Amino acid sequence: MSESQHADRLNLLPQAEIECRVAKIKAEMSVAGIEALLIADNANKYYLSGRVFAGQIYIPLHGAPIYFIRRPVGLEGDGVVYLRKPEEMVQSIAQPHPVSLGLELDSQSFSSVNRLAAIFPEAELKNGSALLRRVRAVKTPAEIEMLRRSGIRHTAVYARIPSLFRAGMSDIELQVEIERLSRLEGCLGQFRISGDSMELYMGNLLVGANADSPSPYDFAMGGAGLDPSLPVGANGTIIRPGSAVMVDMNGNYDGYMTDMTRVFSLGQLPDLAHKAHRCSIDIHRALCRMMRPGIEAKALWLRAEEIVEQAGLKPYYMGHRQQAGFIGHGLGIEINELPVIAPRSRDILEAGNVIALEPKFVIPMVGAVGIENTYIVGDDGIECLTTAPEEIIALDV
Amino acid sequence: MSESQHADRLNLLPQAEIECRVAKIKAEMSVAGIEALLIADNANKYYLSGRVFAGQIYIPLHGAPIYFIRRPVGLEGDGVVYLRKPEEMVQSIAQPHPVSLGLELDSQSFSSVNRLAAIFPEAELKNGSALLRRVRAVKTPAEIEMLRRSGIRHTAVYARIPSLFRAGMSDIELQVEIERLSRLEGCLGQFRISGDSMELYMGNLLVGANADSPSPYDFAMGGAGLDPSLPVGANGTIIRPGSAVMVDMNGNYDGYMTDMTRVFSLGQLPDLAHKAHRCSIDIHRALCRMMRPGIEAKALWLRAEEIVEQAGLKPYYMGHRQQAGFIGHGLGIEINELPVIAPRSRDILEAGNVIALEPKFVIPMVGAVGIENTYIVGDDGIECLTTAPEEIIALDV
Repeated sequence: MSESQHADRLNLLPQAEIECRVAKIKAEMSVAGIEALLIADNANKYYLSGRVFAGQIYIPLHGAPIYFIRRPVGLEGDGVVYLRKPEEMVQSIAQPHPVSLGLELDSQSFSSVNRLAAIFPEAELKNGSALLRRVRAVKTPAEIEMLRRSGIRHTAVYARIPSLFRAGMSDIELQVEIERLSRLEGCLGQFRISGDSMELYMGNLLVGANADSPSPYDFAMGGAGLDPSLPVGANGTIIRPGSAVMVDMNGNYDGYMTDMTRVFSLGQLPDLAHKAHRCSIDIHRALCRMMRPGIEAKALWLRAEEIVEQAGLKPYYMGHRQQAGFIGHGLGIEINELPVIAPRSRDILEAGNVIALEPKFVIPMVGAVGIENTYIVGDDGIECLTTAPEEIIALDV
Repeated sequence: MSESQHADRLNLLPQAEIECRVAKIKAEMSVAGIEALLIADNANKYYLSGRVFAGQIYIPLHGAPIYFIRRPVGLEGDGVVYLRKPEEMVQSIAQPHPVSLGLELDSQSFSSVNRLAAIFPEAELKNGSALLRRVRAVKTPAEIEMLRRSGIRHTAVYARIPSLFRAGMSDIELQVEIERLSRLEGCLGQFRISGDSMELYMGNLLVGANADSPSPYDFAMGGAGLDPSLPVGANGTIIRPGSAVMVDMNGNYDGYMTDMTRVFSLGQLPDLAHKAHRCSIDIHRALCRMMRPGIEAKALWLRAEEIVEQAGLKPYYMGHRQQAGFIGHGLGIEINELPVIAPRSRDILEAGNVIALEPKFVIPMVGAVGIENTYIVGDDGIECLTTAPEEIIALDV
């Protein structure tokens, strides 16, 4: 085969979609006083091209993006420049060079930032991370379509979870069967997480007292994990009668993730567990009525807090031994996008936000209850992308 | 339960093991002129405590380490200090403060480094990343024992791969069954990779022409993947007669990873594929005889190159459309540790290095062949940790 037969388009997004995303970024660059933005983060490169590659994207405030590619070989398209080292990009960038350069200071390593910044020694260094997070918080219709597709497949997998259960299974045995089903349904597995300290493999399934094992992360419920090198999630607990089984598994089916949690039970759960689960659903209902463009994220958090206090469930809310500091988060390419639904959040909801709400409770010795859904915020109301049944589902019927 | 019943030891390593690791680090700090090292990277925190937690470890050149912990709650031990923000650590550090501070500049984000550096405004900032990589490249006997255990379970999974194959399966279907078996055997799944740009889920299974799809990473064989958001590995190719099936799946069973590749076949493979596979095994044999303390890593690379040239297999070696720049790498907590077996490597082998060698070939339209094994370098010779049969194994007998 000739090389040209191997050639592949760099840019997998429709031209209009690219232009829309670049225009949103340039508007933010203009406000931030950034003359050029140099993007190296996989999530942001994917956002701007529809694929992941090794290299950088250079976006001048005035002019067309340049895609500097190291690997893979064989990509073609407007603005594609192959290079071996980032230092070579200087030859492709028109003079005068930018006087201010935005880099992803929150996600790129100190050494990488210094290497890229040194290519433009005259430019003032600015932080482009927040700008990109703000732009990506408001999804385009094309992105929402990708999220809907992930939601459909995610929901289809959850519907089949009861059929995977066998008496005597451990938490990890049930999780592995859900992982298998998810992967056969097309789940990519990868959890993209902004920031490099959170590690998680394919999701969490938490049974009984293990839900109350505090994790290194800002989670309502953590789980001890199978090994102290990855201390989160299932720990080998046998699923016994009287246990709640909380399932919070990866919904990345096409590069855009939905987030969904459901609870299953074996045998009879105490009334407290049912009451708390009901309270979580009530919070979802109340917050769904409030989630409109213009509302403050912290108002959602406060409303949920009120509902929990009225129900007398505060000691169990968002964890018991260790409590999480948020009850919802934006998501899309990464699992922790904007807005953040937390008491000190300054985020204000916009149409096009996609938000996972996860008011949860840990009932000591029983397990975790409550649901998580992913919602699109629209001008006229919300749309739920994760539509599996919300009540606690018995595994033994 | 009282809080004290929940208390857990911070440090899961034997005291002598901790002391040995800290002493190795201090020796390197002394050479590098680093008076204090502040560690935030999960892999390095795990190395120094036997667990992952949110927070930092402060190692003064003179004095005992301090473990600054944000989460999880409930850890106890010598040197444990809980804090909410890293800025609070200054209260726990004896005066005078260090005049030079080592941070992990190659793995921590620019913003994180600046935040930590600002706690010690008088200190000169130094890069601690290379020092930690050098220390971790020489495994202690306790680490080697962890690697041996991963190797045993990794090998047990590979032995059962032929039993998982069913006629008509796609690459991803077979991969999912191997993932399931690995997970049930205790595989943690997580690939720890130094540097944040390489993304990979649980390993690669490559069939036929897909092995020749170039990836964004420095891999001999990449695979197109299921989606352009994660363009690596299986792409849905049906496993047909005449295909080589290369399996390179995650061997992280206890926080320490082994790396192993084996090739399976359906139907008859062309002689060229068998010849190249034989050549890979010959390279392993030749390099195993050379791998002794004191030998240059690049000498191993050159010897492999000679063997390949003598066999006339250069066009297929380490990839066909896109070739990888190395044939082996250290590994342990992360998959890409030192030494690197590459033409311009300056590494020199030491006793205690653990190295995965992976001389591989891509035969166009047939697939990838060759093996990968993980070896311990000892004073008296090597020990292979990945002992599954090395020949090409037929799936259809």
